[in-house]
Amino acid sequence: MRIAVDAMGGDHAPAVVIEGLTAALYDFPEYELTVVGHLGKLSYYLEKYGIDDHPRLRKVHAEEVVEMGDFSTVALRAKRNSSVTVCAGLLRDKAVDAMFSAGNTGAAVASTTVFVRMLPGIDRPAIVASLPTTSGRFILVDAGANTDCKPMHLVEFAIMGVAYAKYLFGVDEPTVGLLNVGGEEIKGNDLTKATFKLLSKLPINFIGNVEGDNIYEGVVDVVVCDGFIGNIMLKGAEGLAKATMHWMKDVFSKNAFRMTGAMLAKNAFRELKEFGDADEMGGAPLLGVNGMCIIGHGSSNPRAIRNGIKVAGEVVQFGINDIITESVAEAHQILTKPGNISGQKDVDIPPDATADKNGEVD
Amino acid sequence: MRIAVDAMGGDHAPAVVIEGLTAALYDFPEYELTVVGHLGKLSYYLEKYGIDDHPRLRKVHAEEVVEMGDFSTVALRAKRNSSVTVCAGLLRDKAVDAMFSAGNTGAAVASTTVFVRMLPGIDRPAIVASLPTTSGRFILVDAGANTDCKPMHLVEFAIMGVAYAKYLFGVDEPTVGLLNVGGEEIKGNDLTKATFKLLSKLPINFIGNVEGDNIYEGVVDVVVCDGFIGNIMLKGAEGLAKATMHWMKDVFSKNAFRMTGAMLAKNAFRELKEFGDADEMGGAPLLGVNGMCIIGHGSSNPRAIRNGIKVAGEVVQFGINDIITESVAEAHQILTKPGNISGQKDVDIPPDATADKNGEVD
Repeated sequence: MRIAVDAMGGDHAPAVVIEGLTAALYDFPEYELTVVGHLGKLSYYLEKYGIDDHPRLRKVHAEEVVEMGDFSTVALRAKRNSSVTVCAGLLRDKAVDAMFSAGNTGAAVASTTVFVRMLPGIDRPAIVASLPTTSGRFILVDAGANTDCKPMHLVEFAIMGVAYAKYLFGVDEPTVGLLNVGGEEIKGNDLTKATFKLLSKLPINFIGNVEGDNIYEGVVDVVVCDGFIGNIMLKGAEGLAKATMHWMKDVFSKNAFRMTGAMLAKNAFRELKEFGDADEMGGAPLLGVNGMCIIGHGSSNPRAIRNGIKVAGEVVQFGINDIITESVAEAHQILTKPGNISGQKDVDIPPDATADKNGEVD
Repeated sequence: MRIAVDAMGGDHAPAVVIEGLTAALYDFPEYELTVVGHLGKLSYYLEKYGIDDHPRLRKVHAEEVVEMGDFSTVALRAKRNSSVTVCAGLLRDKAVDAMFSAGNTGAAVASTTVFVRMLPGIDRPAIVASLPTTSGRFILVDAGANTDCKPMHLVEFAIMGVAYAKYLFGVDEPTVGLLNVGGEEIKGNDLTKATFKLLSKLPINFIGNVEGDNIYEGVVDVVVCDGFIGNIMLKGAEGLAKATMHWMKDVFSKNAFRMTGAMLAKNAFRELKEFGDADEMGGAPLLGVNGMCIIGHGSSNPRAIRNGIKVAGEVVQFGINDIITESVAEAHQILTKPGNISGQKDVDIPPDATADKNGEVD
């Protein structure tokens, strides 16, 4: 298993990335890692963690860095020698089986989409995140790769979400729900109403519409939505979790009783915080590209980096892209079958399969 | 101040509604209330709370009830004698200044939109909710009245949000943000990109795009979005707050130390819960209709009902509809000014000003 790691991506790069990469190197003896970044700047950290001459570490130089605030297209134009672009190039050339980046999400989406291209039958890549429920987790897809979507894109997202749920939850037939504003089929906007019809025809475990509240009760394994709402939902959950911690500090520091109570239960607070933490998950795969790219959170700590690298190898080994390719071929066959008029009518696929410059979000 | 109260609307109607109405009757001596519902079923409660012969209470019979699970259009077709429809009729006939309903949201939107019609210059009504931040609250508009929106509808939502913020926060120039997936102007989907241009031209305190996370930090007073995403955001916040309480119970009951800690701090938990509670707010106004309708949460307790009735009177007294009418007239003038090409291009107003049957959500 060969994995390229973007050493310059993330709020605390490269220090945190190299620390996480070192852990992965020791924890997963079957992985061969390629560290990609400015080698002059990396040598201090590689020596510090004693992996400069590690037999399973390859080093590839990248002169530039796509900053977190850069537009995604910078990776394709002004900074074609950036660490994330070089990673995507290695993936395209099959020099690695997967890549990991905790840097600019839009840049990772743009560079892999353009360099590595899509899987057969897939038009748009999707970011597949997971969020906690009261009974486990659910998968949110697309969590932010595409802002304006057609019904057929949401069908692809559902298929990719199901494939990832098979890996993450180890279930054979994950349940799928369409994120909507009401339970009934006729509820929603034009996009969800058309998508509902398509999803109903597929051989997946589609249970219908789900809503903003019941998804946290674990009513479904995979929640399908466009990337605009997915991004806002994901960031909204993060923002609300952070605000809740703030409110808790406020109310627990109001008097001595409460402060004593909080001290007695301080491990409970730590555990509570972990529910919202993405570190254990390591990152969100960008599925649909003809390769494997795991996108880490910009604020990833070493443990999150290590886990992201782990996941990258695991999903490749799981054969997730084969599952997606087979399922999407089957879906296209069902939905474009002669006589399946609503399928034909709703399948509206733009001629250019690559994401346009405004189709990504950070 | 004359306010109609839908006695049959809400999960615990009519008992809870009559209890809340009784509190409002005693707390606000300048209000004249009209209780609307099946008088045969209400008489027990009116006697129980001793308000059956109250001099400031009027009673109007409505034979039917729109149930929470009914489609919104039921209020206009099968159940034209329902309590919510009768309330809307009183509002249309100027027999009351405002109405309050904790029942089926879609039915309240549909009946007021069709019977009471829109304010001059307003095409779509909007539900104006408020959510807590680490430093106060923000207003979310549209929180669920419209699923498919045009840029000009979001302009109207911004204007209505500003008017409500002036009332709720008592500030002269509330800040406005457009809910989006990134901070830069070019980020977003087709709708937000076009809306950004329009909002930039208006004499409002538009600060640009805001995201799913930073809105909970109180970066802005008014968050503008379409009703599809607004509904999902609002329900998402509710769902996550409920899940957080569940997780807290889990982690605090793990051992004796934590349980003791939780007991010492039990008032802190109660206070924390109140952050997510909508009871103090009483409900969300449906703005844009030529009258005033406050929509309460289906699970409203008596305090929420009482506060909803209070708010209904206050916003009428505040003259919110005059503020909206003036602002929207000014906005239309600015955006359709000769030479203001982008304004003209983006203003795409459907000929029918009433919400279509799929334009509402529950």
